[in-house]
Amino acid sequence: MCSVISRVKPVQRLVARTLRLCSKTEGLSYAAAQSRRFRPGVDFHVDPLRVNSRTYCTKMAMTPGLVFRQLFEKESSTYTYLLADTDTKEAVIIDPVLETLDRDLKLIKELGLNLTMAVNTHCHADHITSTGLMKKRLPGLKSAISKFSGASADVLLSEGDKISFGRHSLVVRETPGHTDGCSTLVSGDQRMAFTGDTLLIRGCGRTDFQQGCATRLYESVHQKIFTLPDECLVYPAHDYLGQTVSTVGEERKFNRRLTKSKEEFVEIMKNLNLPKPAKIDIAVPANLVCGLHGV
Amino acid sequence: MCSVISRVKPVQRLVARTLRLCSKTEGLSYAAAQSRRFRPGVDFHVDPLRVNSRTYCTKMAMTPGLVFRQLFEKESSTYTYLLADTDTKEAVIIDPVLETLDRDLKLIKELGLNLTMAVNTHCHADHITSTGLMKKRLPGLKSAISKFSGASADVLLSEGDKISFGRHSLVVRETPGHTDGCSTLVSGDQRMAFTGDTLLIRGCGRTDFQQGCATRLYESVHQKIFTLPDECLVYPAHDYLGQTVSTVGEERKFNRRLTKSKEEFVEIMKNLNLPKPAKIDIAVPANLVCGLHGV
Repeated sequence: MCSVISRVKPVQRLVARTLRLCSKTEGLSYAAAQSRRFRPGVDFHVDPLRVNSRTYCTKMAMTPGLVFRQLFEKESSTYTYLLADTDTKEAVIIDPVLETLDRDLKLIKELGLNLTMAVNTHCHADHITSTGLMKKRLPGLKSAISKFSGASADVLLSEGDKISFGRHSLVVRETPGHTDGCSTLVSGDQRMAFTGDTLLIRGCGRTDFQQGCATRLYESVHQKIFTLPDECLVYPAHDYLGQTVSTVGEERKFNRRLTKSKEEFVEIMKNLNLPKPAKIDIAVPANLVCGLHGV
Repeated sequence: MCSVISRVKPVQRLVARTLRLCSKTEGLSYAAAQSRRFRPGVDFHVDPLRVNSRTYCTKMAMTPGLVFRQLFEKESSTYTYLLADTDTKEAVIIDPVLETLDRDLKLIKELGLNLTMAVNTHCHADHITSTGLMKKRLPGLKSAISKFSGASADVLLSEGDKISFGRHSLVVRETPGHTDGCSTLVSGDQRMAFTGDTLLIRGCGRTDFQQGCATRLYESVHQKIFTLPDECLVYPAHDYLGQTVSTVGEERKFNRRLTKSKEEFVEIMKNLNLPKPAKIDIAVPANLVCGLHGV
């Protein structure tokens, strides 16, 4: 045992580190390639001038000694993430879902992992977490969620908390807006960010219930996520279009909502007119106590 | 332009390279951890003796300078893969689906990629490929599929063919069994294998139509995929349980069907009694000509 929670200095308005992999020449060759390869009149809803102004280079995360699995729950389109140290086998799971508990436990057992912590990025409204039941199946497992979530858990997380597993770690950045208690978990090497519902691929979580606030979400993303390196991989809690990953650089440039001004963003979020999530009246009370199966 | 197809020596019954990351001590500590952490009587359908006999260590692929995206089409539960060189921007797409063509083209444009080849691992029966229409939208793009598929394409692939994009490549291994024309595409560094329907996560493709043959599938997997390094990541064409990736080592140990003897495997495949795929009568004729939109 196991995951160590320790406090490191709070992350505030970090200056973005710009990791450029590409030369201007490549940018030009991309522009030339586009004019050659894409037919006129095809609208990709992307401003070509902005695309061509910079070349986006993304690559795979290259953290040595990391076990990493992205898992999907199709009813709520939720991503669960399993991370572990290849040597010590200490593991952390992010946003596990009740419906896929058996699948996840089977994988953890097959991979020979010692799961020490189940972290929720926030108190979900669209599905019930498996955290409580997982704790019953894996005695010793600890639950964790933001101290601002209003939910009970073994560990209440704050800005700068570090969740360690073997040589790896996840550092908490408070990113309220979708809810008061939303966290983004950033890997120690800043190669991966688990953004929950704060930042989705080319989108973001809604802000019209559960203390949602568009202004706070906008500030959270711009201050706590868009300040990460462009290369940092963005792993959200959901995707509804079959996309699995993005990068900070891409979202800074192509996110449909968060590339707008704060005022435009607030206006967009005010007018989404989304239906109430089908499971909210069951999911939120359950998730306030780790999914009704014990904290 | 672009992707270079060159022939390298055929891969036959390669001796498995065993890349062990873990010591025996870790294996023991896993065994100890399991007996401590998992409740008696919980059946994970895994033989605990076999699990404990070896510790499975998986890690992320670490290919420098590789753009990699896994994309999902939910109706047919198909994975499409986009790979590119971060410097040259040359890109290859594997198993693109008609329904998600616009999503894929938008991503290719946003990432500034120059897509040179669309490869199908086989002639699919459950969905229509977007390859033909993608060629119309991206003039210069080449289609590729096994020469044994019976399908038309710009490039007909054989054992050992190498599809190059920048500093990266995919090498073709013929893996018939699900169909006569199934290929597995292995990255040049053998860190990733795109197995199509030949090997799925803990399962495999059916063998009861389209020249399917259980014996051939079994031999393909054992001779061409299970001989890859244990650490090699397995990216299949489908998953129905929300799993996104496995490894050769895991499948060698935990695949429900392919860990059996050849005779047992053939018997299992004979008795699956699966319904006919809903789209087969539309999809196969379409996919024989790159999806009805031109070869």
